[in-house]
Amino acid sequence: MSADRINELVSLLSAERVLTTAADLEHYGRDWTRWWQPAPLAVALPENIAEVQALVRWAIQRKVAIVPSGGRTGLSGGAVAAHGELVVSFERMHRIGEFDPLDRTLTVEAGAVTETVQQAARERGLCYPVDFGSRGSSQIGGNIATNAGGIKVIRYGMTREWVAGLKVVDGRGELLDLNRGLVKNATGYDLRHLMIGSEGTLGLVVETTLRLTDAPRNLQVMLLAVPDMAAVMRLLELARGRLALTAFEFFTDRAMDHVLTEGGQSPFETRAACYVLVEYEGVGDHESAAMAVFESGMENGWLSDGVMAQSETQAQALWRLREGITESVARYTPYKNDVSVRVSRVQAFLSDMDALFACEYPDIEVVWFGHVGDGNLHVSVLKPESMDKAAFEHACERVTGMLCDVLEKHGGSISAEHGVGLLKKPYLSRVRSAAEIELMRQMKRVFDPHGILNPGKLL
Amino acid sequence: MSADRINELVSLLSAERVLTTAADLEHYGRDWTRWWQPAPLAVALPENIAEVQALVRWAIQRKVAIVPSGGRTGLSGGAVAAHGELVVSFERMHRIGEFDPLDRTLTVEAGAVTETVQQAARERGLCYPVDFGSRGSSQIGGNIATNAGGIKVIRYGMTREWVAGLKVVDGRGELLDLNRGLVKNATGYDLRHLMIGSEGTLGLVVETTLRLTDAPRNLQVMLLAVPDMAAVMRLLELARGRLALTAFEFFTDRAMDHVLTEGGQSPFETRAACYVLVEYEGVGDHESAAMAVFESGMENGWLSDGVMAQSETQAQALWRLREGITESVARYTPYKNDVSVRVSRVQAFLSDMDALFACEYPDIEVVWFGHVGDGNLHVSVLKPESMDKAAFEHACERVTGMLCDVLEKHGGSISAEHGVGLLKKPYLSRVRSAAEIELMRQMKRVFDPHGILNPGKLL
Repeated sequence: MSADRINELVSLLSAERVLTTAADLEHYGRDWTRWWQPAPLAVALPENIAEVQALVRWAIQRKVAIVPSGGRTGLSGGAVAAHGELVVSFERMHRIGEFDPLDRTLTVEAGAVTETVQQAARERGLCYPVDFGSRGSSQIGGNIATNAGGIKVIRYGMTREWVAGLKVVDGRGELLDLNRGLVKNATGYDLRHLMIGSEGTLGLVVETTLRLTDAPRNLQVMLLAVPDMAAVMRLLELARGRLALTAFEFFTDRAMDHVLTEGGQSPFETRAACYVLVEYEGVGDHESAAMAVFESGMENGWLSDGVMAQSETQAQALWRLREGITESVARYTPYKNDVSVRVSRVQAFLSDMDALFACEYPDIEVVWFGHVGDGNLHVSVLKPESMDKAAFEHACERVTGMLCDVLEKHGGSISAEHGVGLLKKPYLSRVRSAAEIELMRQMKRVFDPHGILNPGKLL
Repeated sequence: MSADRINELVSLLSAERVLTTAADLEHYGRDWTRWWQPAPLAVALPENIAEVQALVRWAIQRKVAIVPSGGRTGLSGGAVAAHGELVVSFERMHRIGEFDPLDRTLTVEAGAVTETVQQAARERGLCYPVDFGSRGSSQIGGNIATNAGGIKVIRYGMTREWVAGLKVVDGRGELLDLNRGLVKNATGYDLRHLMIGSEGTLGLVVETTLRLTDAPRNLQVMLLAVPDMAAVMRLLELARGRLALTAFEFFTDRAMDHVLTEGGQSPFETRAACYVLVEYEGVGDHESAAMAVFESGMENGWLSDGVMAQSETQAQALWRLREGITESVARYTPYKNDVSVRVSRVQAFLSDMDALFACEYPDIEVVWFGHVGDGNLHVSVLKPESMDKAAFEHACERVTGMLCDVLEKHGGSISAEHGVGLLKKPYLSRVRSAAEIELMRQMKRVFDPHGILNPGKLL
């Protein structure tokens, strides 16, 4: 029966664009989470919208679930195919299409890699400003499906802000051409915004028209050594009013230690509890403004040291201290959470969490870092060598439960930018009300009446 | 039976907060459109969320439709109550609530007037930047229900961008507390964005947490005399790269004539076909930049004259030339349309429309103006004195049909920022596909299973 299905898929696409080897099923069946064993039926590589529609119609007829697949850099299992699903990979749909200089828009297919889109914008004298560590692998379709955020949100917002038009194939195989690149369009429910962040459960993103903007000018990067979280937040308040911030990133001394172990060098002679990477546009009298921030920070005891990159190379070296964190802790089987609270609650939230960890798991190492200017913190819980995997997983689940309690207290979210997928599904009811979840279920049935679009994810 | 219902409403609120006089029914039963005769059952003035929920539950039980009512400044009949509906006015729910300086958010009730919110932001050292002519009457709840745009969209975007949290009562009487002020929150479908622009058909906005921003610094205003639409678009391209634009507004010589008839003075000695009001932040070396724009515009023949406001008073006088247009043509029973195309299509679209008007209705006066930097144009068709009302209405309907054809050709929208309401409903299928409209209908049933929320509007 499985062979019949494969033959049907081959007849829809071609033999070379239906993958079935064990290696391919494993490769395309999982994302950057490593918690589930991939087991898809096959991998389809459509090359155009009509083929995507044909695959959806086939899936309806054959009652086969579809898992949409971008760069699979997700961290919540949203792109995992573990139950005989058809993985629909968009890697062959990566064309960079029409650019309009007056509209400042660029149309691209879903499978275009983030970095390629950024480069295409640069070549046209503009900038696609959504940016994050996985820029070299993640695809635009996946970014839209998860409303990806990243390191420049404080200035440019989420992926959502840059989607001027969106083509999606819904669960009935219909192509929806949403908003068509307009700036203003008040004609009924904005299905574009509903699709963004819906994790492939309402429709498959096939093409988008992205808004571009002016490239930031003369970027300056500084790294500050900061005594505690309270000081980090005071510095944010101080810097925000004076500098044209494009990033305000925080990490702890432990995060820095891991990065330094992997190579690289601290620019500071002494340690600090926290570090803040500040990036801003060097416009107007930015030298005086930066100096004023630095001096005021020193006077108030909000920072103990700081360096300013004097070249592009130095700026990159400072950024590596922040961006290298994820890779540097990868070998410790980290259990990751990606949470957010309102900016005003960051300090209280972290203080509560630190107290809880100290009390409940004094032997487990916890690494905090993140986009603190948006209230978004990443936490990686590292497995002690002495602890076996099962005990660690049990501890991690308890940690997430604790995290939920503390987030609830502070009005936060259990997933800031990684989505719900499989990993956060058990915790959805902690951040969305029963009424909201019931509405979401019903909306899912409207867009995907046959239940074939990424079933079991999110809801 | 009507008396029974009124008594029940009185018992839910109080006698003084249930209005039933003919004058009140007329006043609260219509918006700034004057095409429909208001005939609501009654007007309810709830003072808190629990009362709104009680009214919705009562409406479900009694099968009475609810028309939510803000400042009723809408131009598409979205707030018209012409069929025995209960008007729920939010004018008693206008509290300005919590302000958080670190989050830069301000929580306000739905009935807060736009200008009051702008003022509250200013008093807190920040800015609520969504702005339009009806700022003194329009309410935040209505702004959200229509995703209001206005004169600063080129810089600050639509109302949508500023809604960090949203409380709505859905058609089952459930209170939904959406997004709770977070910057990043990737936990399922973003119902907040779905509610924004849904014109009260999915839920009643009761409270919102608005994001605020830095006030623009040192605003400069200039008015340019421009020979034609092609030149307007070249000037937009020129100015956008050089000045920190906060508005780029266009109007024709006819629009200017009407404003001057009502008082005011043209700053120019000779006429031009078009005028452009440019507002920008005076930061960096803005004097040189503005001079460069002006000189380059003159050299290329894109402008024939220009004035720069030298004081706040002069700036206001220039703004009045633009903002006075709507009022100045009011006595001609104008038939208004609010359309948009991509910025790159504005010139071709206007050229097609002008040709059509010249050919089909040479005797009817047409006044164009609008937010050309967003591709948003307002058109007012004025009734010739010699034409009777019925003939004029017939002509206007034909004009809208023609407009739809031309918009379709250029990929535009029949409502840029005024919503669909009753007025644009016949034309919805010209801008949204049958598949989209069917999805919208089904979503309406999900959120409003009893069909009591603003029925007959939009869909």
